[in-house]
Amino acid sequence: MSRKIKLGIIGAGRIAHVHAKSITFHIPGAAIKSIADPYMTKEAERWISDFNIPNLSKDYRDVINDTGIDAVLICSSTDTHAPITREAAAAGKHVFCEKPIDLNISEIRKTIDAVDKAGVKLQVGFNRRFDHNFMALKKAVEDKTIGDLHMIKITSRDPSPPPIEYVKVSGGLFMDMTIHDFDVVRFLSGSEVEEIFAYGDVLVDRSVADAGDIDSAVVSMKLKNGAMAVIDNSRKACYGYDQRGEVFGSRGAVVTANDTPHTGIFFGENGVVAEKPLHFFLERYREAYINEINSFVESIDQDSTVAAGGIDGLNSVIIASAARDSMKSGKSVKVLY
Amino acid sequence: MSRKIKLGIIGAGRIAHVHAKSITFHIPGAAIKSIADPYMTKEAERWISDFNIPNLSKDYRDVINDTGIDAVLICSSTDTHAPITREAAAAGKHVFCEKPIDLNISEIRKTIDAVDKAGVKLQVGFNRRFDHNFMALKKAVEDKTIGDLHMIKITSRDPSPPPIEYVKVSGGLFMDMTIHDFDVVRFLSGSEVEEIFAYGDVLVDRSVADAGDIDSAVVSMKLKNGAMAVIDNSRKACYGYDQRGEVFGSRGAVVTANDTPHTGIFFGENGVVAEKPLHFFLERYREAYINEINSFVESIDQDSTVAAGGIDGLNSVIIASAARDSMKSGKSVKVLY
Amino acid sequence: MSRKIKLGIIGAGRIAHVHAKSITFHIPGAAIKSIADPYMTKEAERWISDFNIPNLSKDYRDVINDTGIDAVLICSSTDTHAPITREAAAAGKHVFCEKPIDLNISEIRKTIDAVDKAGVKLQVGFNRRFDHNFMALKKAVEDKTIGDLHMIKITSRDPSPPPIEYVKVSGGLFMDMTIHDFDVVRFLSGSEVEEIFAYGDVLVDRSVADAGDIDSAVVSMKLKNGAMAVIDNSRKACYGYDQRGEVFGSRGAVVTANDTPHTGIFFGENGVVAEKPLHFFLERYREAYINEINSFVESIDQDSTVAAGGIDGLNSVIIASAARDSMKSGKSVKVLY
Amino acid sequence: MSRKIKLGIIGAGRIAHVHAKSITFHIPGAAIKSIADPYMTKEAERWISDFNIPNLSKDYRDVINDTGIDAVLICSSTDTHAPITREAAAAGKHVFCEKPIDLNISEIRKTIDAVDKAGVKLQVGFNRRFDHNFMALKKAVEDKTIGDLHMIKITSRDPSPPPIEYVKVSGGLFMDMTIHDFDVVRFLSGSEVEEIFAYGDVLVDRSVADAGDIDSAVVSMKLKNGAMAVIDNSRKACYGYDQRGEVFGSRGAVVTANDTPHTGIFFGENGVVAEKPLHFFLERYREAYINEINSFVESIDQDSTVAAGGIDGLNSVIIASAARDSMKSGKSVKVLY
Repeated sequence: MSRKIKLGIIGAGRIAHVHAKSITFHIPGAAIKSIADPYMTKEAERWISDFNIPNLSKDYRDVINDTGIDAVLICSSTDTHAPITREAAAAGKHVFCEKPIDLNISEIRKTIDAVDKAGVKLQVGFNRRFDHNFMALKKAVEDKTIGDLHMIKITSRDPSPPPIEYVKVSGGLFMDMTIHDFDVVRFLSGSEVEEIFAYGDVLVDRSVADAGDIDSAVVSMKLKNGAMAVIDNSRKACYGYDQRGEVFGSRGAVVTANDTPHTGIFFGENGVVAEKPLHFFLERYREAYINEINSFVESIDQDSTVAAGGIDGLNSVIIASAARDSMKSGKSVKVLY
Repeated sequence: MSRKIKLGIIGAGRIAHVHAKSITFHIPGAAIKSIADPYMTKEAERWISDFNIPNLSKDYRDVINDTGIDAVLICSSTDTHAPITREAAAAGKHVFCEKPIDLNISEIRKTIDAVDKAGVKLQVGFNRRFDHNFMALKKAVEDKTIGDLHMIKITSRDPSPPPIEYVKVSGGLFMDMTIHDFDVVRFLSGSEVEEIFAYGDVLVDRSVADAGDIDSAVVSMKLKNGAMAVIDNSRKACYGYDQRGEVFGSRGAVVTANDTPHTGIFFGENGVVAEKPLHFFLERYREAYINEINSFVESIDQDSTVAAGGIDGLNSVIIASAARDSMKSGKSVKVLY
Repeated sequence: MSRKIKLGIIGAGRIAHVHAKSITFHIPGAAIKSIADPYMTKEAERWISDFNIPNLSKDYRDVINDTGIDAVLICSSTDTHAPITREAAAAGKHVFCEKPIDLNISEIRKTIDAVDKAGVKLQVGFNRRFDHNFMALKKAVEDKTIGDLHMIKITSRDPSPPPIEYVKVSGGLFMDMTIHDFDVVRFLSGSEVEEIFAYGDVLVDRSVADAGDIDSAVVSMKLKNGAMAVIDNSRKACYGYDQRGEVFGSRGAVVTANDTPHTGIFFGENGVVAEKPLHFFLERYREAYINEINSFVESIDQDSTVAAGGIDGLNSVIIASAARDSMKSGKSVKVLY
Repeated sequence: MSRKIKLGIIGAGRIAHVHAKSITFHIPGAAIKSIADPYMTKEAERWISDFNIPNLSKDYRDVINDTGIDAVLICSSTDTHAPITREAAAAGKHVFCEKPIDLNISEIRKTIDAVDKAGVKLQVGFNRRFDHNFMALKKAVEDKTIGDLHMIKITSRDPSPPPIEYVKVSGGLFMDMTIHDFDVVRFLSGSEVEEIFAYGDVLVDRSVADAGDIDSAVVSMKLKNGAMAVIDNSRKACYGYDQRGEVFGSRGAVVTANDTPHTGIFFGENGVVAEKPLHFFLERYREAYINEINSFVESIDQDSTVAAGGIDGLNSVIIASAARDSMKSGKSVKVLY
């Protein structure tokens, strides 16, 4: 790698910390020059100092307008993703934007147009594309290990529901949680969703219903390449973060299991006990987060296509929206891109 | 067990052989007195002789009218199930009938009525209810090991499609294959299906389409008790008979894997290789078939309720029919019993 | 199979019951004509009646001298194995004898000579040779799946120690328990043990020391074919009967795991819990016991070599004796056959 | 961590690269100031440059005498470990020394004395103590999850033998390879080896015999705390680096499996295929190497005891030496420390 890519981070919350740590310790080709957040916590100040990030600001424009910065990571709240992406692009910065770009489809289109016009790169934060297990599934489809793809199955369950205040502004389960699974289906199949049907319900926590959302769902799909897909979601698996996948085809299937902290199994009086899955996304996708930013940095350095672009951010939201329509109408919905 | 229950078998095909073998070698409380089939093969004659079945006939009425027989096993072709069940019941025989009782719902109702009127027992051949893995799932639901049930997942794939001639008269994938899975969902949940949605397609073999059927499906359901369920089917898994299940609830999940011929795992240059699943239903459900007939015999002996009765035979067909309607209409269908 | 082989059983204890059940329900080619035991329990009387065994006696000679009997199963106490085997052989009966033939090597030699002279078959009760997992290991060695054999590893642990009164007359851990593992090493390798070294200790229960025995051991061996082997034993694994094996060679390894009652795995708050191993030999080797007697019956019917003969009974005792010598001397002992 | 610990590295071979990478990218509390090797390869020059190591020398004394350096990592050839450790200690540097400190026991004692006299820290490169799987085993012993420890089992096989030139100077299998396993036994048990017995042979490659060494071994031990242990080794497992462990006690066992690149399992026509183990120590113990150096740095920073000290380096060599004696004499050897 010929030079250090200089990065700025907008937002100093949990996911900003993940990326800052990845860059500082694991990505030799990049360095963080600035970070901005109007409400900087003590904890954020500590890690910003630990990671030797030289510039701090309350105003994200200080990051965007810094001519010494090549690219920005947008880790602020969802409603700011689209406008800041456009501003950053206009300022000539490459953009890594956490998902979703926006809950509103025309806002996303407008943002992609702005990015295209500016001629910068836009990568969307679909971290699972960089996970060893999902990459193994992808490879088995791509190299035809499983022959022609017939079926994709994704089980995706969180260890516990988010705060109800978050649920209210999240855009709903499909837009907030299943969106990752929709992207995984697109990623694994290399195809688009043609039709979708969704059942959803509140089985975990009644207060979710009051917030107008669901916490459990089964979503089935027909893909343009002829394969089918099915996702099952729950906001609460008491045993932790359940992230399993399966691809099935004419020559076999590949099935992935959860990652665990170690391989030890205890044979005791009450059974044969293995470790629970790694608890949540920060632990489970630690390596994926590193790979994700590293891939973004390499795309800039080598002027290559990003591994998850604006179209991926757009289409996953379109699918989530169609899933919601299906659940409400009780009908299979054709997905229009 | 106080006495030997005397059984007659109608039909001398593959499944008749399975039951005859179970009774002869594994069920001390019963004996086969007669068997009838208009077209007896050489192979059938051989095992009938090996198992020392004293009476052979071309006419099933000889079995039904034999006063020395307590119960009959109806293993003839599907279209004969309902009328022979009614005749046998009228003759005072308890009946074990292979699934489905009939493809026509009113025929089934009529048959159940006849059985009820005759005051005999009717057990339907849902063998998976007697399988160690599905029984483990059932137990985890019933004793609340997994808390409140939220989700049932069934993967059910055959090693290879049946002959196209069979497909044409089978009633279709949902009626012929998924019917077992529908019964498993009812068995595991202890509840009824309220709404159903199905995607189906021909991905394995185009000739199935010409026969008016599908060979791959994803079927999702909402159950009356609030839980959801999802079944995925394929007529062809090149690695063998894939029979996995999962129950998920507020306190955890139980997941079953396929049975294998032994536990040996080969660590070699090309990977770490475990055995394929037991190839097909005869091997996979060998013990379940024994348990099934043993349970039927015990129900007679102890005058207790059968483990899979007429209502189970009826409702699974009603659900299969609703699944077909959903696939055609692209809508979620309310199941009316 | 052309005719029913008529069997007599000597001894009506636990293992006699196992074999009687196997023969009655699972081995169509054989039937039990007589059974003898001087101390018949109520329980024994019950199963003898259930299995319709026609003749009962207090005197084993009634079995041996019955001209209608082809073969006897010797299931009486260890000290009677050798003399009854000789008597039975002299009376022209084929003999299935539980292990060990005797604790005294010259007694065993004398018995084998007597059997040879009589021209009858002698099979020794090494049931593990008929187990699906050990057969898979054997096959991997024989068909060179693992290339040239380098190492055999056996883990063999009982769920709990036998009564101390039994320990006292058992001949010691190596003669009573490890003897099965020695036979497995010979069976898997197709070779003989050349040198042996043993560490043993009392780690489970001090009263075993008072009885002059050990309850834990590690035994290593060099085999005549160049491979090595190692066995680890314990009289008490709180999680049940632990029976694992491994063969390792130039082209890979095959490793077996314990059998379990079903494949269900519970994902719960306290871990991911699989079933414990099948509790003890009656459950674990149920199928193996059936295969074992079936193999004996077939050997008689087809006049073929038994799968575990007198030499196997002899050599395993010789090895056990050498292991004991090694433990006492702290030296590697050459095994002299 | 209050300040950056300044490190120097002696030797620029493969393991030096591993540590340099760990420090540069994963250990924020330390930095590499200098590196020395008389024969610097092009490849070494490249990574030294990539990692921005400021000072390069052909003479290790330049590192030892640099007053700006707190500690040195000795990654040179085995025969230089002891003298350089003593020189470094005399110069007031803390020392991390790759195993073994020396092949000669009195050299090791002399080195430990020198380190003690200098009042610096000495950590020995037993990387497995920092591996997630072995740490899980250790925890299960320490917190009595398995009750009282009865047995430790270690399987340790390399993917392929080292070059024969290396074998000749390695000190032999026990000193070069098994030494890690001996340390693991000591680590897991928290006890010392009291008696040892070893069988060894050449099964993989005859040229090893010409070099006076073995390539396959089974080593059994009695520990001072009463437990037993057994190690099996091979220089060549065609399926990769096999690193499994087991601890067994009065309340159960913990068994570890190999780490794999991902959890995907392929169900295909030829079996159910999981990934092979991570190929060799660089991949398998990547995290352990990071943890190891991080632990060393923390010990310096917090002036705490190192996790693997001089005594661990010494005793593992004493045990290896006793194993060799046992193999030659065919006797159990008491280990004298």
